[in-house]
Amino acid sequence: MMTVQKGRLLGIGVGPGDPELITLKALRLLQSAAVVGYFVAKAKANKGQGGNAFGIIEAHLTDAQQRLPLVYPVTTEKLAAPLSYEDVISDFYDTCAVQIASRLDAGQDVAVICEGDPFFYGSYMYLHDRLAGQYEVEVVPGVCSMLGCASVLGTPLVYRNQSLSVLSGVLPEDELKQRLHSAEAAVIMKLGRNFEKVRRVLQELGIDDRAHYVERATMGNQRIVPLDEVEPMSSPYFSMIVIPGEKWRG
Amino acid sequence: MMTVQKGRLLGIGVGPGDPELITLKALRLLQSAAVVGYFVAKAKANKGQGGNAFGIIEAHLTDAQQRLPLVYPVTTEKLAAPLSYEDVISDFYDTCAVQIASRLDAGQDVAVICEGDPFFYGSYMYLHDRLAGQYEVEVVPGVCSMLGCASVLGTPLVYRNQSLSVLSGVLPEDELKQRLHSAEAAVIMKLGRNFEKVRRVLQELGIDDRAHYVERATMGNQRIVPLDEVEPMSSPYFSMIVIPGEKWRG
Repeated sequence: MMTVQKGRLLGIGVGPGDPELITLKALRLLQSAAVVGYFVAKAKANKGQGGNAFGIIEAHLTDAQQRLPLVYPVTTEKLAAPLSYEDVISDFYDTCAVQIASRLDAGQDVAVICEGDPFFYGSYMYLHDRLAGQYEVEVVPGVCSMLGCASVLGTPLVYRNQSLSVLSGVLPEDELKQRLHSAEAAVIMKLGRNFEKVRRVLQELGIDDRAHYVERATMGNQRIVPLDEVEPMSSPYFSMIVIPGEKWRG
Repeated sequence: MMTVQKGRLLGIGVGPGDPELITLKALRLLQSAAVVGYFVAKAKANKGQGGNAFGIIEAHLTDAQQRLPLVYPVTTEKLAAPLSYEDVISDFYDTCAVQIASRLDAGQDVAVICEGDPFFYGSYMYLHDRLAGQYEVEVVPGVCSMLGCASVLGTPLVYRNQSLSVLSGVLPEDELKQRLHSAEAAVIMKLGRNFEKVRRVLQELGIDDRAHYVERATMGNQRIVPLDEVEPMSSPYFSMIVIPGEKWRG
């Protein structure tokens, strides 16, 4: 009996947004894969669109490569009872893993693309944890969004022996305050509807004048706006606040 | 009278070590520059060698591109009085900036290459701070070493809303302990002769079993060693400890 050699799972970081910020290795592996998986919000998928990561690399794909959209079932972590976000998203990742495993079992390599880096808050991680034990896996690191932000701001992020805190805007106000209080340099991700809370904390700590706000860094529609001019409810999920470390003369 | 248009200063992240982990943009700008500047230790420069970053990109350069080695005057921060590291290194960066400015004034673009990312603990920052006010500057972000490490470990670094602390092994023991105590995920850079101190702190906090040690991640001579098998004095400066966030089932 012939046995088919299993395909490889490829977790591919495609960088922060500028299509030119993909690595040579990511591009090579991406183009070598029979199947390209990507996460996408339901609203976009319904319009036949890919997600952010897909938009970054779409031009590099051939028609022969199979597209595998992985459509998020929810867009918010706040669900009405008896639904819980944890259960719904966990089921979703289980289903994605099964879909991918069927391609891998058939001998196809599957590249799952991630904006930024796969292991830096990327949804790919949940597929990795489900599949890495059973299949050959390769992860290609990418330029993460916070370094994309620092580059477009033209602001060094951390000098010499400074400590950097990377925080989620979703954190409770007290915890944010405590972590920012002890931070020498900080990045706050996942702003969106958390923006107003984060700005208030920065103001209370008196460090709002050191904070830079960026939307969609390195993308065509990038915006850099002073913190006090941001319309809180207009702040997209892919926005970020960067508080660079104090300049060291070096 | 003719005036020469000034050249551009390009701060270019070349990634963590694997030459294939350079971005398309970094490669394009690097190959377009008349002058390529790189930092290098005196011992290497005396043997006619470039630094780590130079080794990553050397194969991409043409003979026509001018090499500009920037040779560090010291290899340690601990200097005998009356010398101070701060003064010596500050004078050094001043001199580098003058050398680069002379090329920029002559209309040449100067690419300064950095291992990892230029704004993430890179020496380029000190040239940037001296020159960015007077010249056109472009910074190309790179894949940073900590994400290179996570990729070769096959370990997601931060899940969902976890906080990440990036720390220098140079920090005093008490501060390290305090910062690691409150960290959900952590990366400790600049180990070298600080290794033994860092390991002791991890053991005292009882988190040494969650810590991964990597030398020269993504390079040909990469080593992944259990923490208790590391020979402290053999740990190179370009080694790192990664403490991934606790798995979230997702």
